[in-house]
Order: sequence, then structure tokens, then C-alpha cells
Amino acid sequence: MSRWKPDAQGRLVKAAIELFHEQGYEATTVAEIAERAGLTKRTFFRHFSDKREVLFSGSIELQRRWLEGVAGAPADAGALAAVSAGLDPVVEMFAERHGFARLRAGIIEANPELRERELIKLQSLAGAVTAALIDRGVSANAAILAAHAGVTVFQVGFARWVEQDDPAAFRRLIDEALQELRSVTAA
Amino acid sequence: MSRWKPDAQGRLVKAAIELFHEQGYEATTVAEIAERAGLTKRTFFRHFSDKREVLFSGSIELQRRWLEGVAGAPADAGALAAVSAGLDPVVEMFAERHGFARLRAGIIEANPELRERELIKLQSLAGAVTAALIDRGVSANAAILAAHAGVTVFQVGFARWVEQDDPAAFRRLIDEALQELRSVTAA
Repeated sequence: MSRWKPDAQGRLVKAAIELFHEQGYEATTVAEIAERAGLTKRTFFRHFSDKREVLFSGSIELQRRWLEGVAGAPADAGALAAVSAGLDPVVEMFAERHGFARLRAGIIEANPELRERELIKLQSLAGAVTAALIDRGVSANAAILAAHAGVTVFQVGFARWVEQDDPAAFRRLIDEALQELRSVTAA
Repeated sequence: MSRWKPDAQGRLVKAAIELFHEQGYEATTVAEIAERAGLTKRTFFRHFSDKREVLFSGSIELQRRWLEGVAGAPADAGALAAVSAGLDPVVEMFAERHGFARLRAGIIEANPELRERELIKLQSLAGAVTAALIDRGVSANAAILAAHAGVTVFQVGFARWVEQDDPAAFRRLIDEALQELRSVTAA
């Protein structure tokens, strides 16, 4: 059967997002998610520890892409420029996921526990980006500030991207947020 | 008895910090905290819902002071300048609390659950500062970016302050972090 239905994880994520959106996060069970995906609960638990983690499964790939992007930024790029350049592979990852990202954002926003989880993931991401900058030779202090600024810029750009209708606007919206941050911090 | 031992809440906080530092956060019970403070468990629970909240009782005053400071910043101050000026009453609040803040930071750092709680409190603070900036007429986008940048600057300044020995250095360390942020974000 799996030969005709590859990517069990992707199907579980899609099913979960649909169900959370249709009937609410709290009201949805793992059994329902597995059933919608045409899979068993046992398969669900091979991929995720619980239904909450389905919503955060993309964060590992996001972080991997961002860190690779930071590491691959031009050697002469400043700390914040490297953070921004590092978002190119992240933007690419989300290119086909605008509808998904929008539904997910609505589900997270509606639930305080999920909002907390999201914040913690973003802070963990900021820590990882800080380390990637230090690996580039950026001083610890500048790395912390640039990484946190980058995460804020990403959050603001992301929030605007899911609010509007053009899936291709993500990079531009991030750049606008970055430009606004530069204006706000200009002495 | 309370006439001779005022500020039950302050005594509970002091006792809790001492015990958490001496024997660990996990190992300390509410009964021990109350006993060290010379109070009953019943009094403890009049002030705090659990032992964790003792560590975060200062966050309400911190937020109140920061918001008042932002609201009272000169009318012509830019968004980030208002956020920074708003930290003056916060710095004042911490003037007598360097030793306490240092112990508390060590306790938080040692416990993942407490670190998560701290992050969430800081994000909630960023939301409140964002609202205070919007009240000043700052656009929503600039307010979000300036408030989050301000919280990062506060975090960095605070972390350096508790690491070093001069209680009076807090404002200077915040200003240095702010200056570093300006350098990092300069195009």
C-alpha cells in the first residue's frame, strides 16, 4: 500500500491541519488524524509523539535550512546580512506551503498552549542562529542581537505573508520588515 | 505578628531564592519556603499559586514600570528611543536587587521549565511594550520591531549585568547592547 501512498508524514500533517481547522485542535484525536490520512494510529506514533508535534514538525527543516543559509552566506556579509541571506532556503521551503502556513497560523493563534510552543521554538531557533553566526566569526554579543533581530524580522514577515494572498511575496515581506527594523534602530 | 514582620511577599521571595540556590529548585517545597520566611503555607498560597510563580512575581512590576516609562518618554522620541528611555524606571527597580537577580538567573538557567517560563514572560512583555508604542502613535509594524528589539537589548544587558560585579552598571550595559544592536542593524 505504501508504494502508492508515499510520504506518510506529509499525509498526517495535511490531515491534522485540515481537521484542526475544521473542528478545532482540542476536539481532534490522533485516531481521527490517522483515519483521515488513511493510516493507523501506530503509524502516527512512528512519526509524532502527540498531535501537538504535528504542527511543529516543519521547524526542524526550517532550522536546518536557515543554518545552512547562514553558513553559506558570502564571507564578507555582516551578521544581520548573513541572517537575512540565510532565509533564502527557508523562503524556498515555504514556496508551496502558503495555504498550509495560513491554516496553521490560525490554529496556533487560537490556542494559548500552541502559541507558547511556537514562541519556544522560535527562541530555540534564535539560539541556533546565534551559534551559526559565532561559527562565522561574529562576536557573541553581535550574534545574539543579530539572531534575535532576524527571528523578529522573520516573524513579522511571516505574519504578513500568511495574511495576504500572494504566495510569492514572502521574500519581499521579509525584506520590508528588515528595512523597517533598520529604520527603527537607526540612531 | 505582621506589624513586626511586614512584606510577607518579599520575605517569601527571599526565602525561596535562598532555598532554590542552596538545595535546588526541584528539591524545595512550599512548606520549606514558608518555614524559612517564618510564615505558614496558607500565607504562601495567599501570595503565590505555586513555588514557580515566586520567581516571576517581579515581572508584573517590571512590566508596569517599563510601560509607564514608555508612556512618559519625550513626545519626539522615536520608537526605540522611547523603549530605551522606558527602561529607566526598570533599572531603578533593580538597583537594590543585583545579588537577588544574580541568584535568580542561576536558578532559571539550571531548569528548562523555568527557562521556558522566562521566555514566555519576556514575549508577553514585548507584546505589552508593542501596545504602549502603538498608544504613542507608532505604527504597528515599527512598534512590533522596536518592542522586540528592546526586549532583546534588555535581555542582553540584564545577562551581562548579573555576570559582572557592579550593581550600578545596568543602565550602561543596556546602552552598550543598544549601541551594538544599532551597529548590527546599520545597513
